[in-house]
Amino acid sequence: MTILGRVAELRAAGADVVSLCAGEPGGGAPAGVSARAAELHASGRALNYTPSLGIEELRTAIAGHYQRWYGIEVDPARVAVTTGSSGAFMAGFLAAFNPGDRVAMARPGYAAYRNILAALGCQVVELDAGPAVRFQPTPALLEEAESVHGPLAGLILASPNNPTGTMATRAEMAVLSAWCRERGVRLVSDEIYHGITYGASDISTKSGGADADGASGVHDGTDGDGAAGAAGDRAGVERGVCAWEYSTEAMVISSFSKYWGMPGWRIGWMLMPEDLAPAIGGLSGSVSLCPPAPAQYAAVEAFSVESYAACDAQVAGFARARTLVLENQDRLGWTDAAPADGAFYFWAKPGEAMLARYGTSTAYCEALLERAHVALTPGTDFDTAHGDEYVRLSFAAGYEVVAEAIERIVAFQQS
Amino acid sequence: MTILGRVAELRAAGADVVSLCAGEPGGGAPAGVSARAAELHASGRALNYTPSLGIEELRTAIAGHYQRWYGIEVDPARVAVTTGSSGAFMAGFLAAFNPGDRVAMARPGYAAYRNILAALGCQVVELDAGPAVRFQPTPALLEEAESVHGPLAGLILASPNNPTGTMATRAEMAVLSAWCRERGVRLVSDEIYHGITYGASDISTKSGGADADGASGVHDGTDGDGAAGAAGDRAGVERGVCAWEYSTEAMVISSFSKYWGMPGWRIGWMLMPEDLAPAIGGLSGSVSLCPPAPAQYAAVEAFSVESYAACDAQVAGFARARTLVLENQDRLGWTDAAPADGAFYFWAKPGEAMLARYGTSTAYCEALLERAHVALTPGTDFDTAHGDEYVRLSFAAGYEVVAEAIERIVAFQQS
Repeated sequence: MTILGRVAELRAAGADVVSLCAGEPGGGAPAGVSARAAELHASGRALNYTPSLGIEELRTAIAGHYQRWYGIEVDPARVAVTTGSSGAFMAGFLAAFNPGDRVAMARPGYAAYRNILAALGCQVVELDAGPAVRFQPTPALLEEAESVHGPLAGLILASPNNPTGTMATRAEMAVLSAWCRERGVRLVSDEIYHGITYGASDISTKSGGADADGASGVHDGTDGDGAAGAAGDRAGVERGVCAWEYSTEAMVISSFSKYWGMPGWRIGWMLMPEDLAPAIGGLSGSVSLCPPAPAQYAAVEAFSVESYAACDAQVAGFARARTLVLENQDRLGWTDAAPADGAFYFWAKPGEAMLARYGTSTAYCEALLERAHVALTPGTDFDTAHGDEYVRLSFAAGYEVVAEAIERIVAFQQS
Repeated sequence: MTILGRVAELRAAGADVVSLCAGEPGGGAPAGVSARAAELHASGRALNYTPSLGIEELRTAIAGHYQRWYGIEVDPARVAVTTGSSGAFMAGFLAAFNPGDRVAMARPGYAAYRNILAALGCQVVELDAGPAVRFQPTPALLEEAESVHGPLAGLILASPNNPTGTMATRAEMAVLSAWCRERGVRLVSDEIYHGITYGASDISTKSGGADADGASGVHDGTDGDGAAGAAGDRAGVERGVCAWEYSTEAMVISSFSKYWGMPGWRIGWMLMPEDLAPAIGGLSGSVSLCPPAPAQYAAVEAFSVESYAACDAQVAGFARARTLVLENQDRLGWTDAAPADGAFYFWAKPGEAMLARYGTSTAYCEALLERAHVALTPGTDFDTAHGDEYVRLSFAAGYEVVAEAIERIVAFQQS
């Protein structure tokens, strides 16, 4: 029985369960996006297949987003609209890797990478990226992995990362990008949590020499075209570092599911490296035919002034909940916490006393759910080696829900 | 330059191009489905991830459809809602086959099967299924393939078939199903064109002994629950033979894209064989996360009396266009035509004179497009061996468009 299955059972039995397991925001799409979808369906217009890489209007709008947030020029022809980031990973991995290829990813990390790669016959090389390296890959970890397993074909970098929330600094992105480029290792940059960041200007200023390649600077959302003013209230806060600021040989994967609050719509995108674009274009028609058409037409509205403002308001809500968690860390007695630079996750050990009492984080989570009706995600979902010492707390449910959960957890731990 | 790319160019330049290339209906979803989607989006409700195999309500509604059309009981737990049939093929092939496995399919056939299987490292074994076997696989062809290539792991059967429109009779389905079961070959039954059929009662009555296994009979849409009356105006016409009428070891794949007119919505389903259900369930979360949520909620409306009636009206329109093509076959001088039992395709050779003049069907199609502004699909998209002698004419565009195209083709051929 999984935690989520037990949550459903308890709720069906009438229990007031507080779940901090969500991997998605709950606020919904920006109003303009929903309104466009409603109009489209109300018109009764036939929704037929679109080009397999997406409608031109959306590809162009996504390219404009890169100018707005990162100050980089992206050719709309290099944008592939996909069926969520899942569709991008599937087509991208098929295009970039062959069965038997070794692909590295940090541990802890998002399990679907591992599952998709394994299903495609690739060898997943997990990098033991602990607190000392802020749970992110480093050249030293990569070189150690190559010495043990042999040359790598790819590296998946997720920043902000799920489950840790940690982000690659500008310096780290520059170094990893160069390391991959020099060795012909394909960098796959998962940027689906971009925009859900907290004081990330600290992150970027750590970098020092990273701007030396001249490819990038800090883009605060106030340059670019007219729509950019929407981000004015968060000026100076970085949305994340895009791999294409350093190398267009990377495959960049993103999504409307998180910052834009559209998880169920199943729409995302990929920036295609030039050499892979023909293969991705050829595969997309067979693998997915096309991304969902109504979501494509509606998502064009995601780049309006009003939509950015609505998304930023949602991020401000996550920020309040995040601060509450960080302020209560001592009361919780949790240790080895990741910095939670971005996304809406807090990754930590539930403390020595709890691990001593329950043995594993999974047993701790099960007891917490049964006795206090609070659901956390056990770390084993994300880390096959050390996950049994960690939990993931998602604060996507918002301030009030998180506040209630913290009180219940503290009481449970003291009982 | 593909035919479709040239169509777009000509249209952009102002040409009045008649395209008979469509692989999709143009009439749109049933009104109740569109209305449900419009309401959902207008409410501003957050559209979050659903269970990876789909919402219970839709799985149950799809199971009910099998009772209604085929008279068979399907456990909703064996229904996987998927992101179009593409998503079903991807998850299904990953669950059923391993790299190196041999999977047979008829030639001509739908290219995406070949492309997905090849991308997954499977060996595609094409069966030369010509007019003598109504373009469908037979035990003799399968045994010949095994003697040449070695044992098969799977067989893809598409009925109605794209591009030929031919359907497996009850007897053929019974024989192929038994052949696969006895040898442990996984039957993958592509039933996405079910419901778009023309006088298919002829097909079923050919079968004779097929009912001997007791598993099936002719279901005319008038039994089952209350909604079934919608199909009353087409009573006695078979919607297609479902592989599960003969063996639940088959993987059945279907879709809302064709009969229900929802291609751009990207929603379909699969009936999962018991032994593969755990693997498909495990893979679906990683491969697609979940099918598009708005399409799932709306598709529940696809099984109302009104929705079936709207779909049947659309099929009646295809039937008129089909009759027009068949009546004009002699004027066109086309030969070796497939029977067009179902779907909206007419597969034929454009006649000896045209093949002599142009050399290949591709060159014929190119000349027809340039000089008469009529677009057909060259057979090479569907048959790597003999496709250069065939064309596919889609009559999905409807009676008037097809009538205009026929006059232009006749004039072009006489010029």
